[in-house]
Amino acid sequence: MNFEGRDIVSIKDFSKPDIEYLMSITDMMEAIARGGSEMLKGKILATLFFEPSTRTKLSFESAMYRLGGNCIGFAESSTTSIEKGENLADTVKVVENYADVLVIRHPQDGAARLASEFSNIPIINAGSGSEEHPTQALLDLYTIKKEFKKLDKLTIALVGDLRYGRTVHSLAYALSLFDTKLYLVSPELLKMREEVVGEIKDKIEVEEENDLKKILPELDIIYMTRIQKERFPDLSEYKMVKGSYRLTQDDLKNVKRKAIVMHPLPRIDEIAFDVDSTHHARYFKQTWYGLLVRMALLSLILGGLE
Amino acid sequence: MNFEGRDIVSIKDFSKPDIEYLMSITDMMEAIARGGSEMLKGKILATLFFEPSTRTKLSFESAMYRLGGNCIGFAESSTTSIEKGENLADTVKVVENYADVLVIRHPQDGAARLASEFSNIPIINAGSGSEEHPTQALLDLYTIKKEFKKLDKLTIALVGDLRYGRTVHSLAYALSLFDTKLYLVSPELLKMREEVVGEIKDKIEVEEENDLKKILPELDIIYMTRIQKERFPDLSEYKMVKGSYRLTQDDLKNVKRKAIVMHPLPRIDEIAFDVDSTHHARYFKQTWYGLLVRMALLSLILGGLE
Amino acid sequence: MNFEGRDIVSIKDFSKPDIEYLMSITDMMEAIARGGSEMLKGKILATLFFEPSTRTKLSFESAMYRLGGNCIGFAESSTTSIEKGENLADTVKVVENYADVLVIRHPQDGAARLASEFSNIPIINAGSGSEEHPTQALLDLYTIKKEFKKLDKLTIALVGDLRYGRTVHSLAYALSLFDTKLYLVSPELLKMREEVVGEIKDKIEVEEENDLKKILPELDIIYMTRIQKERFPDLSEYKMVKGSYRLTQDDLKNVKRKAIVMHPLPRIDEIAFDVDSTHHARYFKQTWYGLLVRMALLSLILGGLE
Repeated sequence: MNFEGRDIVSIKDFSKPDIEYLMSITDMMEAIARGGSEMLKGKILATLFFEPSTRTKLSFESAMYRLGGNCIGFAESSTTSIEKGENLADTVKVVENYADVLVIRHPQDGAARLASEFSNIPIINAGSGSEEHPTQALLDLYTIKKEFKKLDKLTIALVGDLRYGRTVHSLAYALSLFDTKLYLVSPELLKMREEVVGEIKDKIEVEEENDLKKILPELDIIYMTRIQKERFPDLSEYKMVKGSYRLTQDDLKNVKRKAIVMHPLPRIDEIAFDVDSTHHARYFKQTWYGLLVRMALLSLILGGLE
Repeated sequence: MNFEGRDIVSIKDFSKPDIEYLMSITDMMEAIARGGSEMLKGKILATLFFEPSTRTKLSFESAMYRLGGNCIGFAESSTTSIEKGENLADTVKVVENYADVLVIRHPQDGAARLASEFSNIPIINAGSGSEEHPTQALLDLYTIKKEFKKLDKLTIALVGDLRYGRTVHSLAYALSLFDTKLYLVSPELLKMREEVVGEIKDKIEVEEENDLKKILPELDIIYMTRIQKERFPDLSEYKMVKGSYRLTQDDLKNVKRKAIVMHPLPRIDEIAFDVDSTHHARYFKQTWYGLLVRMALLSLILGGLE
Repeated sequence: MNFEGRDIVSIKDFSKPDIEYLMSITDMMEAIARGGSEMLKGKILATLFFEPSTRTKLSFESAMYRLGGNCIGFAESSTTSIEKGENLADTVKVVENYADVLVIRHPQDGAARLASEFSNIPIINAGSGSEEHPTQALLDLYTIKKEFKKLDKLTIALVGDLRYGRTVHSLAYALSLFDTKLYLVSPELLKMREEVVGEIKDKIEVEEENDLKKILPELDIIYMTRIQKERFPDLSEYKMVKGSYRLTQDDLKNVKRKAIVMHPLPRIDEIAFDVDSTHHARYFKQTWYGLLVRMALLSLILGGLE
């Protein structure tokens, strides 16, 4: 269970004990996040964002600064430099000379894995293609752990775009390590891919469903995601399904008292603003937990805790 | 007069004693700006710039680093993410988890006020819509204070675009707290709005004027601003007025010996380059004073001085 | 040989003893790069990049952080603000109030020199127009020094675009200070300009050549550069010459055992990927040496070592 120097590429690289150890370290980070630390003084984190993601970038940077380190990096506003034939491996082999850890986000599946093969310093995958977003899955798990004091005996619905959403892929896999029941709630066109469903079905109870309202009373966790208009070849189809994957304060009348609503953010309108003020909302708290998880990962990988 | 945890949204939130207290703290910042400090060690400032403003952003960042803190943030090169339906409140409620103070710039009137209502951490308005730019007004006041050793018994002309320029709105209000005489010098189309003029006229002597050259000999402070071509529906009208709101070395022959020329920058050509070398020019010195004022604000708001 | 407060505008400002002194300081930087330092604590470096160059920017920023300093700055993704009539001198006279050293990159010849005339704080030229890139030349020299333990009695080929490539101009001049033999290998259209060739021919042996393969066995250093399609008015001409200025593993069969391949990066395809794994490749190592050279420069200029 030694994280020092380790790459964080896929949630599948984490065993259940790995996750439990990480959660225990994360518990220590709240005090440091508020009080500051010099644990990673002199260390440099480089963000290589080949597609934009302001929130994820700021989260990693804040985590690094809270631990006393520094940050460099870039964020492409489009895929310009990739089109220009910019070579990912070359970029990695240059920037590894300037930093102690690389955080990479890339539109192509497998990019972070490729980067880790070329890099002499640890790589953290901050989202690659539509497959993986492991630190998001870890922060989702940590949110659940903090709110329910357990990761077992919980019923979770993943709602929205389960086909292209990298967040839900990583999370579904992570949840399958624990004794959970999973509902997959999505329009036909955005159903989770067969191979992903197959893999988790072997381990936990999974049900595909397209009526969110029907199962609401059963749920401990309602995990909402965006449905992007662009995914629909036919706009009328989009308009038809849109309403079914939207959550309002009214809908929450029938949920368990302790049920929570989560979302990787940013949201468009799939969670109505009137949900924000209910005691079920946890999507902003999630970003706080995310900071703590990333602090824990960075301190472990860079040996700040050893 | 406790600034700790306070939002800086509008210059109107400042009483005269508030401003005097801030100026006295600012006087202490020059030594720190040159020598460095660890006053805000471990603190993080986040810049949320929904429209670009390189200079203002760099000024805040430099102030934070001079005090020993760190910075994260973003600057939109256009209004892209706003068009995408990006929700300001959501952004604030995410980023407040990553930082100790938020500096926000936004093209819409009222945006900073709105942000401050959602945020649990202090907000500093770095320019919102065409209404407010309170830290610019404070640094303008501080410049005047340093150069004249007083804020009373002074005659100031605000010159140029008084309709859309947020800088002049905040400054006019700030000046009205002191015993000053104000000339408002602008083309008809860019006159200061009635309601703003009304408010300051209740407190100090204000005169609207469209001939800058005529009043030059009377002035202690000539505060120039840009006139943007885009404001004129008819380009010929722009060309007609343009020259009247331009200052050259020649024009300065008739001013008081101690008169100073100020400008919020960047300039286009409303101040000729030959003015730079005169002893009247203060627009670059202003940016130095701006650094000091922002250092004072940050150290007070974040409790570095308490 | 006092570097404190000095501008780094042109490689021509460096005497041979200057370069030797800088190399000796650079030797001390490897330990600091790995262990960290507080040498420049409280100092701020500002990057003014009027054209994009991610790698150079990251290199300077990493150097500054490794020495304990901080960074602010901007990078234009295009030449937008220059087109808008943004005035370089004004920018410099503003930002010098926020920082202790300015690193500037600009598409126009002479821009860094101009900036240095206006600035009260030291300027480092990180590439201006097609003329100069002095820190690249210094890191190239340092790479050669480290790999050959000397800067004399070496045969170097500069290959590719010798007309518009600022890197090769600065490097050719730097090499002319030492007892070296230089081959200039380029297509007719991209030959080094007469005046540059003339200047170095006075000092060392220079030969212009257009067949790289022929001279390979003689070379100690093969310095490759990009040939940009856009330079050729006629695309068919580009396609004709392209292959002749490309290096593959095969080509390296005939080189000296200790010969090294260098490149300022980024590459397009002028060095085949199969060269990366040979013991001749030094282009990634170069970026590491570059970090060390920039650390040495910053610590000298800002007086961290005095």
